[in-house]
Amino acid sequence: MVSEQIRRHIEQDAFARALGIELVELREGFAECAMRVREDQLNFHGSLHGGAIFSLADAAFGAACNASGQTAVALEMNINFLNAVAPGARLVAEAKEESASARIALYHLTVTDEQGRMIASLHATAYKKNERFG
Amino acid sequence: MVSEQIRRHIEQDAFARALGIELVELREGFAECAMRVREDQLNFHGSLHGGAIFSLADAAFGAACNASGQTAVALEMNINFLNAVAPGARLVAEAKEESASARIALYHLTVTDEQGRMIASLHATAYKKNERFG
Amino acid sequence: MVSEQIRRHIEQDAFARALGIELVELREGFAECAMRVREDQLNFHGSLHGGAIFSLADAAFGAACNASGQTAVALEMNINFLNAVAPGARLVAEAKEESASARIALYHLTVTDEQGRMIASLHATAYKKNERFG
Amino acid sequence: MVSEQIRRHIEQDAFARALGIELVELREGFAECAMRVREDQLNFHGSLHGGAIFSLADAAFGAACNASGQTAVALEMNINFLNAVAPGARLVAEAKEESASARIALYHLTVTDEQGRMIASLHATAYKKNERFG
Repeated sequence: MVSEQIRRHIEQDAFARALGIELVELREGFAECAMRVREDQLNFHGSLHGGAIFSLADAAFGAACNASGQTAVALEMNINFLNAVAPGARLVAEAKEESASARIALYHLTVTDEQGRMIASLHATAYKKNERFG
Repeated sequence: MVSEQIRRHIEQDAFARALGIELVELREGFAECAMRVREDQLNFHGSLHGGAIFSLADAAFGAACNASGQTAVALEMNINFLNAVAPGARLVAEAKEESASARIALYHLTVTDEQGRMIASLHATAYKKNERFG
Repeated sequence: MVSEQIRRHIEQDAFARALGIELVELREGFAECAMRVREDQLNFHGSLHGGAIFSLADAAFGAACNASGQTAVALEMNINFLNAVAPGARLVAEAKEESASARIALYHLTVTDEQGRMIASLHATAYKKNERFG
Repeated sequence: MVSEQIRRHIEQDAFARALGIELVELREGFAECAMRVREDQLNFHGSLHGGAIFSLADAAFGAACNASGQTAVALEMNINFLNAVAPGARLVAEAKEESASARIALYHLTVTDEQGRMIASLHATAYKKNERFG
């Protein structure tokens, strides 16, 4: 179980707040975040900016891999964009640990909309430091 | 050369504007964008959020691969995070075409700070549609 | 169902044969391949070469995304190496379609050993051409 | 400069030898490998197997990131396939360090043919262990 202190710390994420990203579920190795797409998150083609899709997924990843209180940072991430998203849609990102060693953890992430369409699929590698934040 | 009309269209990017991203240079197959890191772009560890780093790079990529006026969308991107960034820093992202066919273009992107430290390195694949926006 | 003709064509893969890769299961959007690790597939550290792990996964991917007889080629793949492998081990690679549009398909691949340890995890993007080979 | 002992150790790579891969140049943070494409390296479409292209690049990467004698292993790699290759072609892979910290190094790799066509472009992350092999 994730302590209230750690959960509160993770929810103090300034960028996630600025984007309207909400932490829906959190346990060690798993997190779910949600976001309602706003007009100020569109690209010049009029659909949701790839950076906003990535940021939603990254918020879930950062929460999941830090949920134990051991500081983890992202080494690398890759994202496949699968479907365009219009403003007003509500997106959900899930981050799930696929594998972990003492130092390295691999996550598989998905971003889906309310109709269950897959918007993006990601892999992300975390590096676990020798320090704790909570 | 990129027409004024296309450049203006690309600069109407709502998400890039919201993040304070500025289009510094634009030509076919190349773009440079810059961003001053703000407090509302930090993560819960207190350094620049990975999503904001990615978004800056993605803004340069989107500009470069659309500079001809043919609509291009991102298929996939991967990012390696190399150094943490503190608020106040000014970051520059460069997107450069590495290879292109009729439908697919591959870009190499870098994000660096004012001291020349590499913050992130990316590869990105664009899919060029049979349509023009400008 | 995959026709005998297509399956035979896919099994004529010279490189897969040279590596001792066997096609275990094949249907549209899914394939499983297996390989017994040989001494001539080791790297200079004495464990299975990353190129051989990738090749096994790629064989499964190539089979799965061509199973309909429409020619598909790999655009990009990424691989996370999770555990080292000793000679003699038998590895299984599974390729499963995660998403598909008219032109592009995304696959998630895993490589595991007989004890169920995950050896590698991959994402792969296929581009479907306007031509058929079978 | 790379010691003869380390260079000999790296050249004892069984898989690279089996594929006919030759180590052309080696220094810390850089390696070049070459390979003549053989019939037994083709896929079922009749062009060079993606696994063989990857393996050539991986051989250069493994050599470059181990050239100091400190044991390094690949964490993750991504590859973009840019052009198909016919049998008989001679390919060259170059691996070049883009960034390095105490534990992690990032490489950019390219595979090109004799005409200078880019065949593949890769990013690769190495993890440097607390041990030496040479």
